[in-house]
Amino acid sequence: MSAGKNRQIVLAARPSGAPKNSDFALKETPIPSPGAGQILLRTIHLSLDPYMRGRMNDGPSYAKPVQIGDVMTGAVVAEVMESDNPDFPTGTIVEGRTGWQEYSLSDGSDVRRIDPSLAPISTALGVLGMPGMTAYTGLLTIGQPKAGETVAVAAASGAVGGLVGQIAKIKGARAVGIAGSREKCDFVVNELGFDACVSHRDQDLAGSLKGACPSGIDVYFENVGGPVFGAVLPLMNEFSRMPVCGLIAHYNATSLPEGPDRLPILMRQILTKRILVRGFIVWDFAEQEQQFLTEMAGWVRDGSIKYKEDFVDGLENAVAAFQGLLEGRNFGKLIVRVGAEP
Amino acid sequence: MSAGKNRQIVLAARPSGAPKNSDFALKETPIPSPGAGQILLRTIHLSLDPYMRGRMNDGPSYAKPVQIGDVMTGAVVAEVMESDNPDFPTGTIVEGRTGWQEYSLSDGSDVRRIDPSLAPISTALGVLGMPGMTAYTGLLTIGQPKAGETVAVAAASGAVGGLVGQIAKIKGARAVGIAGSREKCDFVVNELGFDACVSHRDQDLAGSLKGACPSGIDVYFENVGGPVFGAVLPLMNEFSRMPVCGLIAHYNATSLPEGPDRLPILMRQILTKRILVRGFIVWDFAEQEQQFLTEMAGWVRDGSIKYKEDFVDGLENAVAAFQGLLEGRNFGKLIVRVGAEP
Repeated sequence: MSAGKNRQIVLAARPSGAPKNSDFALKETPIPSPGAGQILLRTIHLSLDPYMRGRMNDGPSYAKPVQIGDVMTGAVVAEVMESDNPDFPTGTIVEGRTGWQEYSLSDGSDVRRIDPSLAPISTALGVLGMPGMTAYTGLLTIGQPKAGETVAVAAASGAVGGLVGQIAKIKGARAVGIAGSREKCDFVVNELGFDACVSHRDQDLAGSLKGACPSGIDVYFENVGGPVFGAVLPLMNEFSRMPVCGLIAHYNATSLPEGPDRLPILMRQILTKRILVRGFIVWDFAEQEQQFLTEMAGWVRDGSIKYKEDFVDGLENAVAAFQGLLEGRNFGKLIVRVGAEP
Repeated sequence: MSAGKNRQIVLAARPSGAPKNSDFALKETPIPSPGAGQILLRTIHLSLDPYMRGRMNDGPSYAKPVQIGDVMTGAVVAEVMESDNPDFPTGTIVEGRTGWQEYSLSDGSDVRRIDPSLAPISTALGVLGMPGMTAYTGLLTIGQPKAGETVAVAAASGAVGGLVGQIAKIKGARAVGIAGSREKCDFVVNELGFDACVSHRDQDLAGSLKGACPSGIDVYFENVGGPVFGAVLPLMNEFSRMPVCGLIAHYNATSLPEGPDRLPILMRQILTKRILVRGFIVWDFAEQEQQFLTEMAGWVRDGSIKYKEDFVDGLENAVAAFQGLLEGRNFGKLIVRVGAEP
């Protein structure tokens, strides 16, 4: 086993703006051998997520940047191929943050076991993983939607947005999505059960969104920023809440947008409407993980939560898939099939 | 009594930018006579507060605008001169929102009795009134300062800011003020007991503030906006909190500031540092009024809270005093002595 090659995608250069192909490099190294207490992991599924763009920058954020030459960071589902750790015998399926590569080592402390009988193992990267927990914790802990309220979310056909609206519906709220095409909007309404969805490519996004939210917006789950935010802000109701977990529209920005400076508009809206705005990352709510897994798995089982996965085959296609993700070209949770399921 | 004149200041025109003299008019009407169940109030102290600028605009806010020709809104301390209401006998001192005028009528439902034995009656407009409760509720309920944290507040020699820092000190936090002059800063540090104070007229406000907050800022009580906000934002710590109760630097603005558009900077800071920003007005926390009065009166009595009042004599000088307030020319809680204390 350990005689073969381990293909890795490493950070070759820090991007300016949208990541270029030359910002990544495909590298081959020997498949490592597990030392004392270690396990050798074979990557099956690699999750691609917007936050990874931030890791490519060298600046202060909530997590350390990837260093030049290092394997790109990312969560995977993997199979234990060799084991010197009795907690993880060969054949065990785990989830961990071993990055954009085909093989890796672990001592078991940074991975968790996945039960393949519960749901397809890829869901550990989506509905039952970090994106699912992001939607669950941010919406319920910060957004706190009440029956009859209106919850709006962008990237509504994506890994997080699609779940935000469905959880809102479970709580009795009205769910309004914003997505990137008519096809995505149809999916959001017809398959995910949102009450309405508008395309952010509409000529008159502000007008469309207003029409879709006749009683205003009580919770806006912010994961995109950009023009969508400008359309949302005037619709925010008194005492509305805004969990902020992402700003994908700005991740590739190399300079600030031109003026006028809208910062005073935002602060004035926050003041006069007494809006709560709060940033979070999923690990701020780590103590909710068991509760999330139990409740979300139940919702998936009973059909009240649906999810869509967008698979790309082969590690060599991860870069193009990631570039597309930042432009909204994926449709559902983006996952690279790095290796076959056992 | 009711044969005399009642002088009133009414809104003559909606200001564009800073309120001009011609936006107000002094009007004389007969002193009204109380009807069944009513009381006649003689204004002693009139409170001038930044929020009044918002009431002069005709736009959506958390309270209705003053209509053209109507008496300017405002809280007063007044004496009951005639009474047809047994709950408010002649001579009773009350606080109520009867506005910029010398006399007014009330049925008693919109005023509260003041106990002159507790503290000077003017404090019902400041430390034991709306400004005090704004500082108390916003800081403690939203800001939640912990021992050892740093709390920053602007307008630190003003009615609200001075109390925010002193309450922060009571809770064991470090208090850093921002004020408009060296004299005010000296007062804030030497009299109010803040740990540091910087002048927002400093050439290098960002640098001065950074020097005064070596461990960053955990709570920023936002009541001014403008350049101070720009200096504060980079200093906000992870999981910091920002109660927003005012934006006085913008109240006279007639257009948005020039670019670049800093809204994405704010949102990015909120996200990466997981900042909580929440707008409020004091009446959102109306249920805390008794607790506030009890606790704050205790702090005033035992000397752990100090306050400064800035008196102006005569209703006819209210307009100039209010114009000065919006430019930061007051020093302490601004109060117009409309009539003599009994």
